[in-house]
Amino acid sequence: MTDAIEFLTLRPDVLARRAEIVADLVGLLPPECLIHEPRELMPFETDAFVSYRRMPLAVALPRTTDDVAAVLGYCHRNGIPVVPRGAGTSLSGGAIPQEDAVVIGLSKMNAILDIDFANRTATVQAGVTNLSISERVSGDGFFYAPDPSSQLACTIGGNIAMNSGGAHCLKYGVTTNNLLGVTMVLVDGTVITLGGKALDASGYDLLGLVCGSEGQLGIVTEATVRLIAKPEGARPVLFGFDTSEHAGACVSEVIASGIIPVAMEFMDKQAIEICEAFAHAGYPLDVGALLIVEVEGSEAEMDLMLKSIVEIAGRHQVKTVRECQSATEAALIWKGRKSAFGATGRIADYICMDGTVPLSQLSHVLQKTGEIVARYGLRVANVFHAGDGNMHPLILFNANDPKESADAEAAGMDILRLCIDAGGCLTGEHGVGIEKRDLMRHQYAEVDLAQMMAARSAFDEGWLLNPSKVFPLDGRAAR
Amino acid sequence: MTDAIEFLTLRPDVLARRAEIVADLVGLLPPECLIHEPRELMPFETDAFVSYRRMPLAVALPRTTDDVAAVLGYCHRNGIPVVPRGAGTSLSGGAIPQEDAVVIGLSKMNAILDIDFANRTATVQAGVTNLSISERVSGDGFFYAPDPSSQLACTIGGNIAMNSGGAHCLKYGVTTNNLLGVTMVLVDGTVITLGGKALDASGYDLLGLVCGSEGQLGIVTEATVRLIAKPEGARPVLFGFDTSEHAGACVSEVIASGIIPVAMEFMDKQAIEICEAFAHAGYPLDVGALLIVEVEGSEAEMDLMLKSIVEIAGRHQVKTVRECQSATEAALIWKGRKSAFGATGRIADYICMDGTVPLSQLSHVLQKTGEIVARYGLRVANVFHAGDGNMHPLILFNANDPKESADAEAAGMDILRLCIDAGGCLTGEHGVGIEKRDLMRHQYAEVDLAQMMAARSAFDEGWLLNPSKVFPLDGRAAR
Repeated sequence: MTDAIEFLTLRPDVLARRAEIVADLVGLLPPECLIHEPRELMPFETDAFVSYRRMPLAVALPRTTDDVAAVLGYCHRNGIPVVPRGAGTSLSGGAIPQEDAVVIGLSKMNAILDIDFANRTATVQAGVTNLSISERVSGDGFFYAPDPSSQLACTIGGNIAMNSGGAHCLKYGVTTNNLLGVTMVLVDGTVITLGGKALDASGYDLLGLVCGSEGQLGIVTEATVRLIAKPEGARPVLFGFDTSEHAGACVSEVIASGIIPVAMEFMDKQAIEICEAFAHAGYPLDVGALLIVEVEGSEAEMDLMLKSIVEIAGRHQVKTVRECQSATEAALIWKGRKSAFGATGRIADYICMDGTVPLSQLSHVLQKTGEIVARYGLRVANVFHAGDGNMHPLILFNANDPKESADAEAAGMDILRLCIDAGGCLTGEHGVGIEKRDLMRHQYAEVDLAQMMAARSAFDEGWLLNPSKVFPLDGRAAR
Repeated sequence: MTDAIEFLTLRPDVLARRAEIVADLVGLLPPECLIHEPRELMPFETDAFVSYRRMPLAVALPRTTDDVAAVLGYCHRNGIPVVPRGAGTSLSGGAIPQEDAVVIGLSKMNAILDIDFANRTATVQAGVTNLSISERVSGDGFFYAPDPSSQLACTIGGNIAMNSGGAHCLKYGVTTNNLLGVTMVLVDGTVITLGGKALDASGYDLLGLVCGSEGQLGIVTEATVRLIAKPEGARPVLFGFDTSEHAGACVSEVIASGIIPVAMEFMDKQAIEICEAFAHAGYPLDVGALLIVEVEGSEAEMDLMLKSIVEIAGRHQVKTVRECQSATEAALIWKGRKSAFGATGRIADYICMDGTVPLSQLSHVLQKTGEIVARYGLRVANVFHAGDGNMHPLILFNANDPKESADAEAAGMDILRLCIDAGGCLTGEHGVGIEKRDLMRHQYAEVDLAQMMAARSAFDEGWLLNPSKVFPLDGRAAR
C-alpha cells in the first residue's frame, strides 16, 4: 500500500498551536483521560485498515457525555478537527486521524446503563463492546443481533458509525434495524437525543441518518438497542458444491423462494482451505464452494426449513450436505468462518473488499471477480454474507512487493466498480472511510453526492468531524 | 374543530400573480394534467384530517418524473410553495394545501414498473396504491408488508412521506423497513436517486431520512420496495379479557417473552361494540377488551406459538380464546378491525390520536386515557396496534357542538402529552402534519428541533415544500 494518501489540507494554525492546545485539553480532562506524548499516541495512528498512519495531535478519552461535549466544544471554538474512535477495528480507515486532529476515543465509556426486558431494550455507553451486550443478557434468553466478526473488540459507537452487520444479519438486519435511540454530541458541544424506547419517533428520522454516517454528524455517547429473544435452537448445515456458480445460484434461489435462514455464508475453495488449516472446522476439502446455512427455531421448524433448502440445493448439483451433530461442532463451524480474516493474514497480506450486489448478480460477480484478480496475476479468497449479497473478496498479495501492492489495490477498485455496475454498492458493512471515498463518484451522480454533503453541512458546516473520509477530496467536498 | 389554523404567512406576491402562474403552468403540462378552476380544485382543499380546508392555487397532475421536475423547478424559481399529495388519506393534515401553493398530485403516476422476484423487489411509480402491489404479486406467492387500513386508496408515495405502518407491521416493520430505493425530485427540480436493489447504500442514509419526512425534503416519484414471501398459513385468534389492563399486560408479557406474532391488535369494549355492529365479525360482546393475535407459518409453527401465547394469556385472566375455523371467518375478523374508523364515523364524529408508548407503559396509558376523556365528559374507543405500542384512541364527539369539538381536541392533546411523558412519542404512523406540529415542542428540546430544521434547510432552504407542517410555527421554524 502506498502511504501517499491525500488528506484535507492540514490547518497550519492548529499545528502551530499544538502545545497550547494540549495545555488547554489538560485543563479540561483529568490526566488519565488525555494522551499527548508521541510514544503513547502511536496506538492511535491507524486502525484495522493499517494501510496509512498519521500521528494525531492528542487523544482524549472522555468518561461521560459532558466530557465529550467539553472537548468537542473546545475544538469547535478553536477550529480543530476531531476524529471519533471506538476500538479502531475499522477496515476502511474510518478511524485514521490526521496530524491536526484530536482523537476522541470512547473506550472509557463502557458501562451498560440499563437492561429493560419489558421493552426488550439495552441502553449502553458508546464504548461498550458489541459482544458484551449479548453476554450480559444471555442468561435471560436474549441477545443483540448484529454480529461483526470483530464483535469481541468493536464498540457499539463504531457499529453505529459504520452501520455494521455480521453473519446473522440476514434475518435480523444490520445496526440501523436494531438501533432505537442515541444521545449524541454535535460538533459545537450541544447534546441532542434521537429516538428512544418507543417504536418510532416523531419528525424526521435523524437517527436513521446518523447511523452509518461514519462519525461525521456528531459523536454518539449512549445508545439504546433492541434485544432479541434467543431462538429455541439453531443449526448450521454445510452445503458443498463443485463450483462457486452453483453455490451462488443456490443462494439466489433460496432467497427468491422466500425462505430466510438466519445466516447464509459463502466460501470458495481458497477460503475453505485457509480457514480449515487454521480452525480445523471440519469443512469438506473436496468441494469448490461451501455454503454455511444456519436455520433456527423449534426442531420442527428447522427440519421444515432445511427440507426446502436441501431440495433447492439439489437442483444446483449440491455435492455434500452435512448437518452438524453437536453444539461443539456448530461452534467449530462458526469459529472457522469468523476467523477467516485472521487465518488469511497468516498466509499472505490481503485487502478485503466489501461490495454488495443484488442476489441475482451473485454468480456473475463471483466469476468476474476471479477474472479481474487473475488479470493482475494475484489470488483471491471469497468468504462472505451471501444471503444478503454482501461480498468480501480477500485479495492476497505480498506487501513487500510494491508492484503487487499497487496491483492488489487496483484489482480491489476494479471489483468495487464491478459491484456498482451490477446494480450494487461500495459497501455492505465496513463503510466508505478513506479506502473508498474516491469511488463514491462512480456510485453517485454529482447531484446525489452534493445532497449528502449538504446534509453533512447541516450538522457540521466546517467539516471538523472526521474529515477526509467518505467524500472524494475535490474542491467541492473540501471545506 | 376550529378553522382558525395558523399557516405560514401567505406570499402576497404569489397570490397577486395567480393568473400569470396558471398561464405558465398551462405551458408546462397538457390540459388534462392541470386543474385551476375553483370548482375543480375543491377535492384538493383538504385530506382525511378534514378539520381544515384551504383552496390551493392550482393542482398539477404530472405523468412522469420529468413533469414533476418541470413543475417543481418552475415553482422554485418563482418562490411558489408546493404541497405534494398522494391519495389525500392523511389523518394528520399532511396534504392540506394553502392558498399560495401549487399541489402536485401523483395520482397519474400509477404504473408498476418492474417486478423482480430474483431480488424480491418491486419498482413502482409513487402514485401506485399500497394494495395494488400485493395484488400484482399475490399469484406468485409474495406480498408488500406494510398495510395501513387505507391501503385500498393510499399511495406508496404517501406511505413513504408518513412512514406508514399497519396491523401486520409488528413482524415486518413499517415503510422504512421495506423501502430499498427512490427516485426523488429536489425542490429546485434536480432529480436524485437514493438506494437501489442492494441491501445497503454507501455514504449517508438519505433514504432513511427521506422516509417519514412528510414531503418536505423532495417529491418521491418512483420507489423500489421489498417483496416478502407469503407464509404457508396465517391464523387470527381472539382473546377476550375482562379489563383493558389485563389485555395490556398480556401484550407486554407476550412481547417480553420474545414471541413476535405477525399482528397483535387491541380493542376496548367501546370499539368491540362499534365494530361488531358494523361488520358482524363475531367478536365476543361479553368482554371488556379484545386482542386479535395473528400468527403465521406452518401448522406446526402456528400451534407452537399459540400454545405459548395461550399460556401467557392464562396468567392474565383471559376469559375467551377463540381460534377461527375458516378463511371466511379470518377475513371477517380482519374486516371488523380494518373498518374500525369507518364504523366509528357512523355513530359519532371522532378524532383519532396516534401516540406510541413503550410496551411496559401500555396499561398505565390506557387507564389514564380513559380518565382524561372522562374529565372532558366525552367517550373514547381504543382500537390499535398493541404489539408495537402504537395507540389509536378515537375520541367521540359531536362536531356541531363547538364546546365538544374544542374539548375533544384538548383531550387529544392531553393524551399525546401523556404518551410523550410515558417515554413514547407523538406518532406511530400517521405523521405530525398540521395536527401535532405544536406538540413537537413537548416531545423535543429546542436543540433537537433545531437540528431537524437544519436538516430540512439542507434540502429546502426557503421551506417551499409542504410548508406549515411538522414544525411549530414560531419565528425560528418559519422562513
